[in-house]
Amino acid sequence: MNEAVLRLLQPRRVAIVGASADPSKMTGRPVGYLARHGFSGEIWPVNPRVARIGDLPCFPDVASLPGVPDVGIVLLGPDRAVQAVRDLAARGTGAAIILAGGFGESGPQGAARQAALIEAAGRMRLLGPNTIGLVNLTDGIVLSATGALEAAGLPQGGVSLVSQSGGILGALLSRGAARGIGFAKLVATGNEADLDVADIIDYLVEDAATRVIALYLEGLRRPEAFRQAALRAAAAGKPIVAFKVGRSDAGARAAVSHTGAMAGADRLYDALFRQLGVIRAESFADLLDIPAALATGQRIGGKRIAILTTTGGAGALLADACGLAGLEVPVPDAATAAAIAALQGEDSAASFGNPIDLTLAGVKPEVFRGAIQALLDSPEYDGVAVVVGSSALAQPEIVADAIAACQGAKPLVAYVSPHAPDILALLMRRGVPSLAAPEAVAHVFQALDWQAARPVAASPAPLPENLPSGNLNETQSKALFARFGLPMTREASAATPEEAGRIAQSFGGRLVAKILSDRILHKSDAGGVRVGVEPAAMEATCIAMRDSVQAATGIAPDGYLIQEMVTEGVEMILGLSRDPHLGTALLVGLGGVAAELFGDTALRLLPIGRADAEAMLAGLRGYPLLTGYRGAPPADVEALIAAILAFARMGEALGAHLREAEINPLFVRPAGRGVVAADGLAVLS
Amino acid sequence: MNEAVLRLLQPRRVAIVGASADPSKMTGRPVGYLARHGFSGEIWPVNPRVARIGDLPCFPDVASLPGVPDVGIVLLGPDRAVQAVRDLAARGTGAAIILAGGFGESGPQGAARQAALIEAAGRMRLLGPNTIGLVNLTDGIVLSATGALEAAGLPQGGVSLVSQSGGILGALLSRGAARGIGFAKLVATGNEADLDVADIIDYLVEDAATRVIALYLEGLRRPEAFRQAALRAAAAGKPIVAFKVGRSDAGARAAVSHTGAMAGADRLYDALFRQLGVIRAESFADLLDIPAALATGQRIGGKRIAILTTTGGAGALLADACGLAGLEVPVPDAATAAAIAALQGEDSAASFGNPIDLTLAGVKPEVFRGAIQALLDSPEYDGVAVVVGSSALAQPEIVADAIAACQGAKPLVAYVSPHAPDILALLMRRGVPSLAAPEAVAHVFQALDWQAARPVAASPAPLPENLPSGNLNETQSKALFARFGLPMTREASAATPEEAGRIAQSFGGRLVAKILSDRILHKSDAGGVRVGVEPAAMEATCIAMRDSVQAATGIAPDGYLIQEMVTEGVEMILGLSRDPHLGTALLVGLGGVAAELFGDTALRLLPIGRADAEAMLAGLRGYPLLTGYRGAPPADVEALIAAILAFARMGEALGAHLREAEINPLFVRPAGRGVVAADGLAVLS
Repeated sequence: MNEAVLRLLQPRRVAIVGASADPSKMTGRPVGYLARHGFSGEIWPVNPRVARIGDLPCFPDVASLPGVPDVGIVLLGPDRAVQAVRDLAARGTGAAIILAGGFGESGPQGAARQAALIEAAGRMRLLGPNTIGLVNLTDGIVLSATGALEAAGLPQGGVSLVSQSGGILGALLSRGAARGIGFAKLVATGNEADLDVADIIDYLVEDAATRVIALYLEGLRRPEAFRQAALRAAAAGKPIVAFKVGRSDAGARAAVSHTGAMAGADRLYDALFRQLGVIRAESFADLLDIPAALATGQRIGGKRIAILTTTGGAGALLADACGLAGLEVPVPDAATAAAIAALQGEDSAASFGNPIDLTLAGVKPEVFRGAIQALLDSPEYDGVAVVVGSSALAQPEIVADAIAACQGAKPLVAYVSPHAPDILALLMRRGVPSLAAPEAVAHVFQALDWQAARPVAASPAPLPENLPSGNLNETQSKALFARFGLPMTREASAATPEEAGRIAQSFGGRLVAKILSDRILHKSDAGGVRVGVEPAAMEATCIAMRDSVQAATGIAPDGYLIQEMVTEGVEMILGLSRDPHLGTALLVGLGGVAAELFGDTALRLLPIGRADAEAMLAGLRGYPLLTGYRGAPPADVEALIAAILAFARMGEALGAHLREAEINPLFVRPAGRGVVAADGLAVLS
Repeated sequence: MNEAVLRLLQPRRVAIVGASADPSKMTGRPVGYLARHGFSGEIWPVNPRVARIGDLPCFPDVASLPGVPDVGIVLLGPDRAVQAVRDLAARGTGAAIILAGGFGESGPQGAARQAALIEAAGRMRLLGPNTIGLVNLTDGIVLSATGALEAAGLPQGGVSLVSQSGGILGALLSRGAARGIGFAKLVATGNEADLDVADIIDYLVEDAATRVIALYLEGLRRPEAFRQAALRAAAAGKPIVAFKVGRSDAGARAAVSHTGAMAGADRLYDALFRQLGVIRAESFADLLDIPAALATGQRIGGKRIAILTTTGGAGALLADACGLAGLEVPVPDAATAAAIAALQGEDSAASFGNPIDLTLAGVKPEVFRGAIQALLDSPEYDGVAVVVGSSALAQPEIVADAIAACQGAKPLVAYVSPHAPDILALLMRRGVPSLAAPEAVAHVFQALDWQAARPVAASPAPLPENLPSGNLNETQSKALFARFGLPMTREASAATPEEAGRIAQSFGGRLVAKILSDRILHKSDAGGVRVGVEPAAMEATCIAMRDSVQAATGIAPDGYLIQEMVTEGVEMILGLSRDPHLGTALLVGLGGVAAELFGDTALRLLPIGRADAEAMLAGLRGYPLLTGYRGAPPADVEALIAAILAFARMGEALGAHLREAEINPLFVRPAGRGVVAADGLAVLS
């Protein structure tokens, strides 16, 4: 682990530069917070205008400090912060926390100031600027000025949070504390002039108190470092839950090919998270609910949920939400139903559905506890949700005791139906994930199915020799693809319509004719494609096509491509597009309108393995078209997977040389007969 | 308005049959609740074993009551409740509320008991059984035993709730009260042995205190009465917001045709709600948040939202959520930006994006208020969302005052970022919809766009004469459709392959051959369709088709259908399916895999008008295929709309005689050239 980050999160000596003696001021908070939350190390306020702050002596400047601080908190405004950082670095301080804004987030002047800050820090690490600092609840160390720390009783626990927004960190801390959710470390990385999300994850992977890592993200500055950190977290068995804004960002709309247009930047993050096993929180509330549940250490082994309720409506809410989320809500097996009926003093277990309704039995704790235990013991269920109804308001401890007593190998989650914040917090503190939204119950069960991602090794193929550059025409593109083993339609290019006619006669059969041009990317739209052409009509067809394309675009074709016409098989689209920041993305989808209008595509970032290719296909809504739809023969999925992996290897080999590439359509013929690419496009740098 | 319902909701004399003198018992609550919440009428407890309950004399039986009650609350168990109902009816009581369960919801014995209850009531109306009663906060009348009423200070307001679950009513009342949401009436209809959701809506339409109606539904017992009541509410300008469970019910999977299979029951409710202008709450939390916002009377005139924040992260959350919901988040115009800059004492307005971030200006109330006002005044915005950050925790009144002072013609919504239930409630009480979830802000702005639905008149065409029955084969089906003006492909049927050959010669051109059978519904799947058949090959083709169908299904075709082959145009699917409960649903979708795999279909319940048909098409993701996709000629959308309306008129005319009908495909030719149905299927009763 990085030594400076360790000193930042677990310091023994803290300098507070610009500390105020007035505790009502923002700059007066950090000294008070450190003392109040139990920091036992040295606190060194620095302020030339004040002799003491509370019981502590105050130092006129950093040079006067009695020792080398592990951390310096800089509470000064942006202009004076740079000198303070220089002073702290000169003393050998491990890291400085810069709270002020007015740096990289605010125009060219701020950017220059941030550059000066980085220069001033030298080898000292920086958290921020534009951060509210960090909170280490495990060790009672608060290096922050956020008002959220005014709240008494911040519970310790296994959830650690890294946030690129200080305000969000404060909001989640105050919301989580009210819910009884225990935190280990909370770090706001702000502008990330130096330390970023990946650095803090690296620390949390080694931090014994951290069981789950929650992230609030606006973007990743170092995607590869994040990837490595996330894989280390996975290897340590620590799930990461991320809420990322930017889902409605239209992204790379201007990209030339369809792939680029469909592979918006946020979808790339989606792909990255999926490949890394990072759980993406869909709603902001999930960013607390899911980590809190994962922090219990519970995991689920399947999709079958039992819902125990004393109030029918709330049970229906949960069943509906679980069903919508793809979970199963099966009725209890006979033995389980009989066990529950016996608890209620009844012979007949015939009436139990799921939700299992104990309404008539009231809420006797022993019946309640016995029923929960019976459901947990049943081999028919993978998890149990318990509804806490209004009858619990009068006796919250009894209900909480009954629920908490049943914790075992399977996950047990509580849904609290009435407004009862105290019960929610009480259950959470007893280790039972407790939720106030029925949708959250379903999301939590889904998330408890977390599987650690395994790293996929890139296959570092050498960069091909004699690589062309720029916009490749169809022939050049397909020649490139063929070098990586992708099967192409039989074709030949002609410089003139006359030559096209001669080639057509030699091919025979019905053919396709296309213009060749590196200036016209969408040949169909420009009228530059003819299908089903008889060889005898080829010359005339090419002349007519040339004239109409020239009339429509003002561009004369460079030549003509004559191809065998493939009509058999399922049409797919394969795409590669290079994001300068996140790397190369691979897109797979059903061809034609399925990809364009219905968005039925899957996306991953390279490198990918065979399991990724299989999962991409299985995740398509149009997947049944490949497996023998309505009596059609099953398509050659093996050959398709091989083509996807070959295309991926090409993307890996070309790296940043590739801007985008697309095969559309790729015909997937019936099983055993392979695939063939009928059109292609590549843009190299 | 129904007089008995008025007496039920606003009684002057209340009998409580089975009242206990022990206030800690459930049966002891109603007397206490009535007194505590300010009921000023007569309270008549009935219990033969008690002489007094508190200050009130207790009567030994209903016959001894000193007058005729408006309402009788029956607190007895299911067996004794029937006699109590009989006694109350004999006295001329307006309505009885039956709290006990053990009736229609619990097996055959319970159903018999419920029938006895209805018989015993005679002309007296019933609420329940299996209900927790009702709460009229407008008039301080509580006829309920729900523990949620233990909460002090239930705020009055414009939201009324009708719930088919008592537990949900209690949960929403306690959650809403904690949020500062004001209620008018809350009614749990329980088993709806008599009064149901539609009856209560009818009352609420006339109730001056009710501004919005919130519904928790598990199903509608009288869909047509609900439709009428909802239209009355719309005419009165009172929005209805419904949360209905059953979204994950697989529904009518066993239906014979694709239409039936795709038109699951919950989708019919979706259609019904859309046609009635009923807002469907997607999350359970929306069922409070949206009505509370609508109760302010605010409506929005467009999609352009300004987000004012003092904390960048929360602003990003809102912008992201708004964008995902289809709202726009444009940057401020120059005049508005300059006005806000001036408030902050700055000359330059160049830095304002949207969210408009006031971070550097702090939270001076006059700046905050001025900025809100400037955004509300800007013609570039339709609504304003204000983020309340942690700096407001110390001075909630100041922030609330500043926000509440700005209410005007445009909607203003607050998002409270830290945990601050008091600020949420304070703002709500001041008339500012306040929300703790960023997604809720977006949902609220969407809902404020509520438009009252206008009734669509059915066109009561007479039932056609000589109507066939049962499964119609393709020829019979198309003959039926043609009677309603739907254009069909040119075709003729043949009894034998030889006759098919003669017909083909007379038609000329390439043709389609299909088997005729009323026992084989999916001809393609059975191998009973051949396309592109030359006339000379028709006889041999029919012989081969007959043999293969017989080999596959064991069924000999009844004959052969010879059709012109349509290859031009966009393929659509039109379907009708009769739900015995909700009526006939019309489905429109793109043909082929678009409808089957991508579910790109729209659904409405009959009757529909032209506006519905247009909206169905515009809502399809594949709609661009109809308007001239990628250089194709625009399709004849006018003719398609006419066909949809003709199909709808057929559905209306046939009513319950029609089980299902489908046209698949309907070819929509280029504009001006009409539509033609190439295949059809109908099942009549």
